[in-house]
Amino acid sequence: MTVDHLTQQSQPNPVESPKLPPSDLKPWRGLIETYRPYLPVTDTTPVITLLEGNTPLIPVPYISQQIGRGVKVLVKYDGLNPTGSFKDRGMTMAISKAVENGAKAVICASTGNTSAAAAAYARRGKMRAFVIIPDGYVALGKLAQALLYGAEVIAIDGNFDDAFKIVRGMAENYPVTLVNSVNPYRLEGQKTAAFEVVDVLGNAPDWLCIPVGNAGNISAYWMGFCQYHGLGKCDRLPKMMGFQAAGAAPFLTGQPVPHPETLATAIRIGNPANWNKAWETQKASHGAFNGVTDEEILAAYRMLASQEGIFCEPASAASVAGLLKVKDQVPSEATVVCVLTGNGLKDPDCAIKHSDNQLKSGIKADLATVAQVMGFA
Amino acid sequence: MTVDHLTQQSQPNPVESPKLPPSDLKPWRGLIETYRPYLPVTDTTPVITLLEGNTPLIPVPYISQQIGRGVKVLVKYDGLNPTGSFKDRGMTMAISKAVENGAKAVICASTGNTSAAAAAYARRGKMRAFVIIPDGYVALGKLAQALLYGAEVIAIDGNFDDAFKIVRGMAENYPVTLVNSVNPYRLEGQKTAAFEVVDVLGNAPDWLCIPVGNAGNISAYWMGFCQYHGLGKCDRLPKMMGFQAAGAAPFLTGQPVPHPETLATAIRIGNPANWNKAWETQKASHGAFNGVTDEEILAAYRMLASQEGIFCEPASAASVAGLLKVKDQVPSEATVVCVLTGNGLKDPDCAIKHSDNQLKSGIKADLATVAQVMGFA
Repeated sequence: MTVDHLTQQSQPNPVESPKLPPSDLKPWRGLIETYRPYLPVTDTTPVITLLEGNTPLIPVPYISQQIGRGVKVLVKYDGLNPTGSFKDRGMTMAISKAVENGAKAVICASTGNTSAAAAAYARRGKMRAFVIIPDGYVALGKLAQALLYGAEVIAIDGNFDDAFKIVRGMAENYPVTLVNSVNPYRLEGQKTAAFEVVDVLGNAPDWLCIPVGNAGNISAYWMGFCQYHGLGKCDRLPKMMGFQAAGAAPFLTGQPVPHPETLATAIRIGNPANWNKAWETQKASHGAFNGVTDEEILAAYRMLASQEGIFCEPASAASVAGLLKVKDQVPSEATVVCVLTGNGLKDPDCAIKHSDNQLKSGIKADLATVAQVMGFA
Repeated sequence: MTVDHLTQQSQPNPVESPKLPPSDLKPWRGLIETYRPYLPVTDTTPVITLLEGNTPLIPVPYISQQIGRGVKVLVKYDGLNPTGSFKDRGMTMAISKAVENGAKAVICASTGNTSAAAAAYARRGKMRAFVIIPDGYVALGKLAQALLYGAEVIAIDGNFDDAFKIVRGMAENYPVTLVNSVNPYRLEGQKTAAFEVVDVLGNAPDWLCIPVGNAGNISAYWMGFCQYHGLGKCDRLPKMMGFQAAGAAPFLTGQPVPHPETLATAIRIGNPANWNKAWETQKASHGAFNGVTDEEILAAYRMLASQEGIFCEPASAASVAGLLKVKDQVPSEATVVCVLTGNGLKDPDCAIKHSDNQLKSGIKADLATVAQVMGFA
């Protein structure tokens, strides 16, 4: 800032600059600044933010009608975070703390939303971002976002377990911070989604329906609801309803699933990192785990898009598929929030393969013909 | 709502329900509810909303440094709208008015962001959504989003001009509302982006940099700034700086471009619908039109992702590419807003093709080897 500028700025002009009327919008400063008193940050923590959070809580009237009895369903559309998934909530915290602690690089083993979020926030924080993956496992499309953000992706001659061993080893032996789900700051950031739900509804919902893979998000939401409840920000706690893909459902079988299978890749996890936390959440909230088939997930995915105008990742639709599956258990007049964890644009192939609507081609370019095809003639 | 429920709700419980502390977040009700006094809606207009708008205005410190001299650059990241582009702003208005006017269907000729937004909002408004495209022209990936939202896509044996004739003819002869850019409510909705910029900054920026294709968005922003200025919400108006792709730059050549070419498909338009409005905007704001090459667009696209953590459509990066091209003209200490119109996830192929970073594969799965590859050993 030059001296000229300071001089210029210090000349008020009350005639041309009357007091402006108040804003219609409250500027959003990202989740760390908004929820600073409830997060493990200090005045000296550098805040690395893309103004994540503050995602819309959208009423879904068609889905509400499928349940009936005055039940009101809303979706927390976390796919509208800056990199397209709820992972940004955890990553703003994990990366800010990594910078605070002097890290020069971060590392994770992930082929999906975690790698994209890690890369975006790490690069914004002027750090290197390493992603370790098994060789030959992953389509380039899944990694394109992370690569564009500047991630350095290393494919090892091994499987995912080997990749996890490597990233842990790097974090133990080098100035590299591990940002996989074992990073404790991730859940701290993710719990803010619960704060937002309460802030918008004015209280906790009756039910919170959420897809369960690693079980970090269900644990984080519960942390958030409990913290807000302790502060008197809500006067009740929701029943936490976790939904797993039937082919990747260790919380239903009660043990790890060696070869998890589902098209909902974001929850294709056989050995969840947050096993104990998730069970504690289920018990404390009087909730339950349920499974949904890929067909049920796809039906909910299509319903959300074609009836409500909301395009989510297949894994996200597990929360709505699950709610519809157990709809008779929902108390009348209940308020239910379903969490949509990722943006549908993350998985365009799924949209191409599983849309009900098909292109009608080869239609003669005249009005009468088109009107007939449209059913108007 | 049952009588039981009413009874239940009317029993206050002052002991268990103390007055809750105020919310940390001001719930966002979508742009029509927020800016209702400034929009052509009445109390009886049905509001069809996905809670669009309120997109983040993100500081971009690396880009600011490239300019220097105390210039502060921020990006309006409109790719975080519900369907992934700024088109949602116009569509919530256009669709709400269509429902108000009794339409049973909407129609447009588009292969990109307009068709996705039209489909999502139309279906949410319980209308049919028709998209007319030239046969053989479009990759299915570009239409997958609209199809999933429930659009009925008809490919005609003709070119884009024929498609436009058909949609106009349908709108004139049948109870079908045209939602292409000629729909006047589109710009009314889009102008709210200018309101948000002013509401967050506390005033208008010095410069507004924006990609120009059909020139609807630059015209809409100008409408918004002028309206807010007239109301005393800002005490200055920005210089409107429009940037076109060099191969699709009618505002530079002064006449339509018969065969526009650029990889920035969202602004690949040779004959802009808002020709006069855009020139009026340029003159009234003392702004300018400039061209940027595809290489400059890609450089800005990569810079935004890898330095700032922001992933936009290639066309969006034209605003930043243009700003960097004319950076010597920016006044010292100026505040500059660059508009990023769409989400990078809309065009994954571009990310795959144009990332600087490449996957390193075939690396031995041991710590020492990986540490060496990473440069830590």
